[in-house]
Amino acid sequence: MYIVNDKEYVCPVTVTTEIFNDKWKLDVIWYLLEGEKRYTELFDIINNVTKKTLTAKLRELEQIGIINREAFAEVPPRVIYSLTPLGAELRPLLEEMYKWGLTYVKKQGRITED
Amino acid sequence: MYIVNDKEYVCPVTVTTEIFNDKWKLDVIWYLLEGEKRYTELFDIINNVTKKTLTAKLRELEQIGIINREAFAEVPPRVIYSLTPLGAELRPLLEEMYKWGLTYVKKQGRITED
Repeated sequence: MYIVNDKEYVCPVTVTTEIFNDKWKLDVIWYLLEGEKRYTELFDIINNVTKKTLTAKLRELEQIGIINREAFAEVPPRVIYSLTPLGAELRPLLEEMYKWGLTYVKKQGRITED
Repeated sequence: MYIVNDKEYVCPVTVTTEIFNDKWKLDVIWYLLEGEKRYTELFDIINNVTKKTLTAKLRELEQIGIINREAFAEVPPRVIYSLTPLGAELRPLLEEMYKWGLTYVKKQGRITED
């Protein structure tokens, strides 16, 4: 059995699925792969997310060890998020998700310019 | 925009997430990567799935072009499921999910023998 965050899993794939069961978390990881971001930058870049949701997702990702949060006591306060080494190791997986999604759309759907 | 199955997506990653939002579908794809399987084999191999759920997930995967269903008019009737070429292209993604899940458990959790 694979045990992590007090849960038991039969297979490592399911562990990964648990992290990726959420569009918002994926969005956060995707944008942090570009480099560290301020809270406000993430809020602006992620489509339709509310502050409440974004804050909750960031906290979850921090708790499970995927992202770092650094707060600077400035006026106005500045909070920077970045991927941990473990989070950064998600790059090949996200790239495969992108690649397969694109293949799927090309075969089964279509891409528009808007 | 990326349009597939009558839905619009901003990013191909989200298209992939939509397929992978479901533990059961992932299980089916995972086992079919080993080779084609009878319905009864899938039912036996997938932990705790009900026949109703398995049938629904197989139908969904067939509809979106990930798996093939072949029914043979024998007594008892035989139904064989296999991955389509598009489904088979999920192998590198599933492998990355396995790899990252294992890394995550090793760093943040533990593996037991049971």
